[in-house]
Amino acid sequence: MEDLALVYTPGVAEACREIVRNPDSIYDITCKHNTVAVVTDGTAVLGLGDIGPHAGLPVMEGKCCLFKRFAGIDAFPICLQSKDPDVIVETVALLSPSFGGINLEDIAAPRCFEVERRLQERLDIPVFHDDQHGTAVIVLAGLWNALKVVGKDLKSAKIVVNGMGAAGVAIVKILLRSGATRLVCCDRYGILDAFDPRLNEEQRKIALSTNPQRLKGPLALALADADVFIGVSRPGVVTSEMVQSMAPNAILFALANPTPEIFPQEARAAGAAIIATGRSDFPNQVNNCLGFPGLFRGALDVRACCINEEMKLAAARALSSLITEKELNPQRILPEVMDSRVVPTIAEAVAAAARQSGVARK
Amino acid sequence: MEDLALVYTPGVAEACREIVRNPDSIYDITCKHNTVAVVTDGTAVLGLGDIGPHAGLPVMEGKCCLFKRFAGIDAFPICLQSKDPDVIVETVALLSPSFGGINLEDIAAPRCFEVERRLQERLDIPVFHDDQHGTAVIVLAGLWNALKVVGKDLKSAKIVVNGMGAAGVAIVKILLRSGATRLVCCDRYGILDAFDPRLNEEQRKIALSTNPQRLKGPLALALADADVFIGVSRPGVVTSEMVQSMAPNAILFALANPTPEIFPQEARAAGAAIIATGRSDFPNQVNNCLGFPGLFRGALDVRACCINEEMKLAAARALSSLITEKELNPQRILPEVMDSRVVPTIAEAVAAAARQSGVARK
Repeated sequence: MEDLALVYTPGVAEACREIVRNPDSIYDITCKHNTVAVVTDGTAVLGLGDIGPHAGLPVMEGKCCLFKRFAGIDAFPICLQSKDPDVIVETVALLSPSFGGINLEDIAAPRCFEVERRLQERLDIPVFHDDQHGTAVIVLAGLWNALKVVGKDLKSAKIVVNGMGAAGVAIVKILLRSGATRLVCCDRYGILDAFDPRLNEEQRKIALSTNPQRLKGPLALALADADVFIGVSRPGVVTSEMVQSMAPNAILFALANPTPEIFPQEARAAGAAIIATGRSDFPNQVNNCLGFPGLFRGALDVRACCINEEMKLAAARALSSLITEKELNPQRILPEVMDSRVVPTIAEAVAAAARQSGVARK
Repeated sequence: MEDLALVYTPGVAEACREIVRNPDSIYDITCKHNTVAVVTDGTAVLGLGDIGPHAGLPVMEGKCCLFKRFAGIDAFPICLQSKDPDVIVETVALLSPSFGGINLEDIAAPRCFEVERRLQERLDIPVFHDDQHGTAVIVLAGLWNALKVVGKDLKSAKIVVNGMGAAGVAIVKILLRSGATRLVCCDRYGILDAFDPRLNEEQRKIALSTNPQRLKGPLALALADADVFIGVSRPGVVTSEMVQSMAPNAILFALANPTPEIFPQEARAAGAAIIATGRSDFPNQVNNCLGFPGLFRGALDVRACCINEEMKLAAARALSSLITEKELNPQRILPEVMDSRVVPTIAEAVAAAARQSGVARK
């Protein structure tokens, strides 16, 4: 009965009054500081596509388990019965008070870009589309290490990114910000052309900045002499011949899941030096659990109002740094998912970057 | 790694596919069946009034703890940044897929009536405004027992209900449905008059059905010769003189919290036979924990699509039945909150009523 009087009426009234007096105290006296909404509209669930908010619920619940297991964060699945960006933005903004962060999940491109941007503009808590930025951060970390193994560098390497959905667009953006200068971006119709009417706004911007000379051609053409292939596209689209046409010591991130763009054995037989996939049964797994738990942990720890570019780059640096020069080899460019150093190391780096870039409130 | 492959990709894909094939399986393979949203707009929080969705969060968190502690239900606080009934209805409907039930909390009247009605029309899961129906169910259970103690009956008793907010309106409705014929309803301006322009729609309907002769006058007048006073109004509005003017063996439910309409000692000194309050430090506590946990437990157990009148009446009967004839006395018309029989007894009765009235899906 005493607990009851404290947790509910009359005791709880004092907690309410304190938040009225001092709005920031909501972070100290409620669960907001450690609670994240995992929000979807069910339009791009795993490889299953637009299966709707109900059928997407198991994925959101699974994601919530990962938040708790890896970062001690209390996450809750919010499955929205609307595909309208206006409605999604409005709804998430309306229900945001009990959350310390918003993880957007499995929302189809190009809607996901607009939803994330508009929500982050409205809210003072981090809004993060994991399919985009989580993937991009891990790819960047792995790529830095892979390039180190083969003695190349990001600035001068020719990098082909195939698949211009949420993940592909985010990967291209983080690579450009990290100094890549020789990017070739492809989708199912080949090298991106800014004047192709099928492109969305984000893809058009990417085409304009990476392909001003309007090169045209299929993926096979793009891959000739490439140092790096990054696929977030479809099973089996890369052949042995394409790998053979790449520069020596080629690096492949074949991230289509569960069936990659090319299987590691075949790529290696065709001369590739380093292969990463999304699968746990091959070396160099690009697993989202390497990213979002530490990113959110760091952001929540310092009450960051967003997860900005500095924080993402800091996360990638921290992740890549976990593989020492000595450990680094073609089978080991990224830490294991179960490596207990991953989340705290990323969280600390993200928190520091948030403070340095002025978005931390604690 | 095996758990990870099961709870998330690739294992979770099979759960998604199963829901696509068989939508009802969402109840078996996700947490929906045991998850309730505790939804507020922060407009009528405890006795604190319109303090907003952020300051209301501690109350919603407390309520979620009670759901878990008393009924094993996983509840989650949703605090909405809007007071517009259209927006509240739309938002809750949009986010409903991950929930098995909606508990509306601390939403001001008359908005709460419309929000509940419209949401229940749209959704196939229970939508329940606890401030209304939970309170009404417990009051009815206690009143049945109190009338038994003094040898009166609901049909012939003169019952004055003071306070026509969410709880008062629901109490009047459940009393009318339970056979009460001599109801006098008052608000701060005295006996309700259907032609008073200050009334809202629900209050007007109540005035029309309980006061067709258009009696006018203050609470003091209404209480003359009354057998029962039920106050969900303001501290101290009932005086000793008013209690003295009531019929012999008067019953008072003085539920304003934490300061009742009249304190038990004073009411007893003025001749009242039975007094109930909202407080744990006096006998006969009308505590909402006696109602909503069992009501939701029963509804969720049989996947009821709503909590209908039959289920509420069954809950009241079950609650009152927990006090045997032998135990019944003026200090004991309701079970203790910590009585472990309360939730399972109500849940069973509610589930049976749901089945009988055709709203159960399991």
